[in-house]
Amino acid sequence: MELNQIYAPIQDDLSRVKDTLKSISRIDFAWLADQLSYVVRETGKGIRPALTLLSAKSYRYDLAYLLPMAVSVELMHTATLVHDDAIDKARTRRGQATINSVWGDEIAVLLGDYLFAKAGEFVADTQTPRVIKLFSQTLATISSGEIGQFRGAYNIDQKRQDYFRRVYGKTASLFSLSTQSGAVLAHAPEAAVAVMKEYGDNLGIAFQIVDDILDFTSTEEAMGKPVGSDLTQGTLTLPAMMLAERHPDANPVRKLFRTRDRRYVDEAIEMVLNSTIVPDCYQVAAEYARDACRNLKSIPDTESRQALMDLADFVVGQGTE
Amino acid sequence: MELNQIYAPIQDDLSRVKDTLKSISRIDFAWLADQLSYVVRETGKGIRPALTLLSAKSYRYDLAYLLPMAVSVELMHTATLVHDDAIDKARTRRGQATINSVWGDEIAVLLGDYLFAKAGEFVADTQTPRVIKLFSQTLATISSGEIGQFRGAYNIDQKRQDYFRRVYGKTASLFSLSTQSGAVLAHAPEAAVAVMKEYGDNLGIAFQIVDDILDFTSTEEAMGKPVGSDLTQGTLTLPAMMLAERHPDANPVRKLFRTRDRRYVDEAIEMVLNSTIVPDCYQVAAEYARDACRNLKSIPDTESRQALMDLADFVVGQGTE
Repeated sequence: MELNQIYAPIQDDLSRVKDTLKSISRIDFAWLADQLSYVVRETGKGIRPALTLLSAKSYRYDLAYLLPMAVSVELMHTATLVHDDAIDKARTRRGQATINSVWGDEIAVLLGDYLFAKAGEFVADTQTPRVIKLFSQTLATISSGEIGQFRGAYNIDQKRQDYFRRVYGKTASLFSLSTQSGAVLAHAPEAAVAVMKEYGDNLGIAFQIVDDILDFTSTEEAMGKPVGSDLTQGTLTLPAMMLAERHPDANPVRKLFRTRDRRYVDEAIEMVLNSTIVPDCYQVAAEYARDACRNLKSIPDTESRQALMDLADFVVGQGTE
Repeated sequence: MELNQIYAPIQDDLSRVKDTLKSISRIDFAWLADQLSYVVRETGKGIRPALTLLSAKSYRYDLAYLLPMAVSVELMHTATLVHDDAIDKARTRRGQATINSVWGDEIAVLLGDYLFAKAGEFVADTQTPRVIKLFSQTLATISSGEIGQFRGAYNIDQKRQDYFRRVYGKTASLFSLSTQSGAVLAHAPEAAVAVMKEYGDNLGIAFQIVDDILDFTSTEEAMGKPVGSDLTQGTLTLPAMMLAERHPDANPVRKLFRTRDRRYVDEAIEMVLNSTIVPDCYQVAAEYARDACRNLKSIPDTESRQALMDLADFVVGQGTE
């Protein structure tokens, strides 16, 4: 199933989210307008705002609160990407030059701050202290997780538990904010909010595992950034971890992390592709996607509930077509 | 008058703000705890949280809301300093090595994000959408102002208006948030909120002008950072602007901005000190301090109102002892 089919129940509202995102670049300062329109251009999947809207759709769906929330989660996501790219010295993202590569690291830091601020303005418009607090807690989780990732870079001795904690921090926490906030703002019963949290937590982990697989199996053209980026930056993801587990001695990831010689990246990718690691990782992702949907049957049987299930299938199907 | 005398009406509560700030470093992640305790160590003047508390003191003063707000404004201030130092490649701040110089730019960016997030958590605890929105708008103003400053660096052709807009963005906007939020959270009448806003706006500008003067007149020991930092970073402040106005041709600031040769910094400092520019700038700061207090007489005559007046005197008295 294609994303636009899955998004059918909220397609019009998602367009309004995108229009609102574009509108933030209409500001007084010409210099900032250029950079803002560059970062909010329409290229992402919009999965986070879609989660907010879909999680609310079975309940009291009021765009006056849901639209600012959906805009807010996407802006927070964008802000973290802008900072991450500056930190990672990434040159391309979604097939385009990164902010830091076009305008420099300093502008990337400040533009990211501005985007966090705008995300904060939109979440304030929900007038709902509970989701505002959750929003800030999520940002704290994301940034402390990134610090953990940065400090753990080039460390081969990480455990699965470290990986999953990192993945929760960098991706699942924001998925979880997206779903929970939708349910809370639509006045869903607490039990349903918990189901949406569980969905967001698990879908986020599944999503990140697949993203980590694609860094080995995809092409630069399809991903919009170089393959092997994680290894090059010293980030130990699940496929690399499995490779290290299966070849405790003399594996290319260990050599790469010791020498930082880029040719070991190609060697590691080849070894991963010539093993069962890729299907094994998809298996782990599929388990998380299943866990995401486990309790969805307890919420009303609507087309948006079906969309959440289809979205879980979509996430773990990426790269397997 | 010393600051601790001025702070007398709120001294105990200000200590609680500082204790709360220190408590944020007690977290699960050992690596982050080191850096957090480093940034929240007790060395600042605490002027922003003091403004929040003093602005509330004449009304319904409830620490349940005011304490998180006061903590929040100080955390936002700290976060912006951490990012600014990374952007400016500053080596020292308040006499200590900066985060970026100890742990690197990447950690500084992420730690700043974490501090923004914590500031957001505290402001959410006020449960007051109006101040939460104002908080986010202020962060947007600060970061867009910093982008303006960065892009305007080494540009000699700036007008007074550009300078005052920059000063509003980098300093006065947060002073204004501090005072307004105190008044709003204490349920002050709207007219009093407006008076506090006016006070914060104007005091912030006075404060920054004095800070800009001290960059010429003070010592590295007293400031905790090298003198002439602004000029070195290409930031055109009021003293440098007056120098450029008085010597339109062949002035050292113009040469500095063109060549970036550090010896012109010393020459510019010497020319400023051998002119009436320093007292003239103090004069401008004093006018803003007077404007800050202009309408304070309309609020209840309490010791905290007197403290706000004394604080205005203190701000424009810095460096003149």
